[in-house]
Amino acid sequence: MKTSRKIGLAVAQMGPMHLADDRAAAVARLMEMMREAKSRSADLVVFPELALTTFFPRYWMLEKEAEDKFFEKSMPNAAVQPLFDLAVELGIGFYLGYAELTPERRRFNTAILVDKTGRIVQKYRKIHLPGHADHKVNAPFQHLEKKFFDVGDLGFTVADALGATIGMCICNDRRWPETWRVLSLQGAELGLVGYNTPSWNIHWNEPVHLRMHTHLIALQASAYQNAMWIGAAAKCGSEDGFHMIGGSVIVAPSGEIAAQSSSEEDEVIFANIDLAIGDTFREHVFNFAKHRRPEHYRLIVERTAAGPAVKPTESPPE
Amino acid sequence: MKTSRKIGLAVAQMGPMHLADDRAAAVARLMEMMREAKSRSADLVVFPELALTTFFPRYWMLEKEAEDKFFEKSMPNAAVQPLFDLAVELGIGFYLGYAELTPERRRFNTAILVDKTGRIVQKYRKIHLPGHADHKVNAPFQHLEKKFFDVGDLGFTVADALGATIGMCICNDRRWPETWRVLSLQGAELGLVGYNTPSWNIHWNEPVHLRMHTHLIALQASAYQNAMWIGAAAKCGSEDGFHMIGGSVIVAPSGEIAAQSSSEEDEVIFANIDLAIGDTFREHVFNFAKHRRPEHYRLIVERTAAGPAVKPTESPPE
Repeated sequence: MKTSRKIGLAVAQMGPMHLADDRAAAVARLMEMMREAKSRSADLVVFPELALTTFFPRYWMLEKEAEDKFFEKSMPNAAVQPLFDLAVELGIGFYLGYAELTPERRRFNTAILVDKTGRIVQKYRKIHLPGHADHKVNAPFQHLEKKFFDVGDLGFTVADALGATIGMCICNDRRWPETWRVLSLQGAELGLVGYNTPSWNIHWNEPVHLRMHTHLIALQASAYQNAMWIGAAAKCGSEDGFHMIGGSVIVAPSGEIAAQSSSEEDEVIFANIDLAIGDTFREHVFNFAKHRRPEHYRLIVERTAAGPAVKPTESPPE
Repeated sequence: MKTSRKIGLAVAQMGPMHLADDRAAAVARLMEMMREAKSRSADLVVFPELALTTFFPRYWMLEKEAEDKFFEKSMPNAAVQPLFDLAVELGIGFYLGYAELTPERRRFNTAILVDKTGRIVQKYRKIHLPGHADHKVNAPFQHLEKKFFDVGDLGFTVADALGATIGMCICNDRRWPETWRVLSLQGAELGLVGYNTPSWNIHWNEPVHLRMHTHLIALQASAYQNAMWIGAAAKCGSEDGFHMIGGSVIVAPSGEIAAQSSSEEDEVIFANIDLAIGDTFREHVFNFAKHRRPEHYRLIVERTAAGPAVKPTESPPE
């Protein structure tokens, strides 16, 4: 067996953040959960996507209004600085999602990884933006990520930090197998993802139970297929009447769930994860050098949408 | 809702084929299950990988010996012809896996799709060959696919047949997300896979329950992520003392299991699958044209194995 390489991983799920809740309220809740994570010997705590505000893409508004109310112009800023200070004091790293407004006035759905010295060691900007840009006037709520955010321009980012090679993604990215593969091809052995997932699909009459089901199977298969640990943090429950799924999890490289939230409130889950378990899967079933065949994968980058079947180039069917 | 487009899909799991069992015995069992499939109004029945013989890559032998005993020099041949004839008589298509020896004496792990007129309309040769080529003298059995087979040279094949756009793969291919993505990028709405999966892993002390678990989560997530139906047929049970998992399934584009075998014997499962369910997923969550970002997927084809993290090209972390 491999020599253990353990790190303490906490996932801090957040219950609802209402429109009336300000940044100070969010940061106070994150700090409370950071203390709890540290009390369980966590090296790292994962917070949700857009953790500082309500999930505002559900509301139709002008971009300028969204920028003023929901975007961060710098990070850390005065409101978030206490969280950074506490991380340094406790000696704990964290993943945090927030809406980023750049000096060039570009808007991204962003997550950062902060190390135990309070330094931002990695940034990721969400690539797979779900939803729409138009106003769906008859829908009970909107999903305006394609209106409020630019497609991320940093690629799928991986960095060595906190004792592991860590890859980052955000929410809808987790449903796309390309996300996890691009992370594992950069050596990621731990993937972090925050999310806000509405319990109802405004686009079609999707059975509600599928929202949790597809969330879990996508994470479990992706952890397995990439020999990675995954930590996934929900913002969940009913934000001003709009319900979102919980189901925060820590998934092992076996595809097994090592820890799962059991509430739709603020809740910290923890596992002392052994990165060496991933090494075993990387050495055998998912030994990429031995088994991958990129010459047969070209359509993945050559096509965006489905096209006609490609005729086999060698001996045709007899 | 979409207009239903239903086809009858049967999956015919096979119990063990021992070394002493000849082709005639295999074909008789396949014909029996083909009749049962037809009795449930199946348009198509999926048989396992290497359905005509025992799973011979578990035995060390010279290539010539394997060719003589376990490979088909033509298809159909005299032994298999009755299965083709019955398909025509009943008006049912089938997927069949077998070991193929070409006129150039190349060896492939192959599957064919045969339509209701008995014509081979599609051929696939396995790309992700698991196992090893050397003799593991201390192992209780071998997994010599890398010795006995060449890597498939036809790509991941898709064809319109039997009322659906059908993609094919074999056994270990199902664990690789690239397989299913390359099929769905060619419009596949139904994926077929036969497999032989040993219950023990000779490479490391893998907990036995993971073999079934990872098989199921990989299929469920892949069906969902590609908005496809999947029919998966096991050869299973104890072949001359070497046990293989069953778990034959029909999986819906929701990632839900629509039918699953409950034995480790010959067993036919059936679902009247509605291809239109896949259309809904393709139109929304997995609308590739709207949401995929191939410019960020390049590592999938540019690297075989994991390499260093790629530095973000745009604005670095602050």
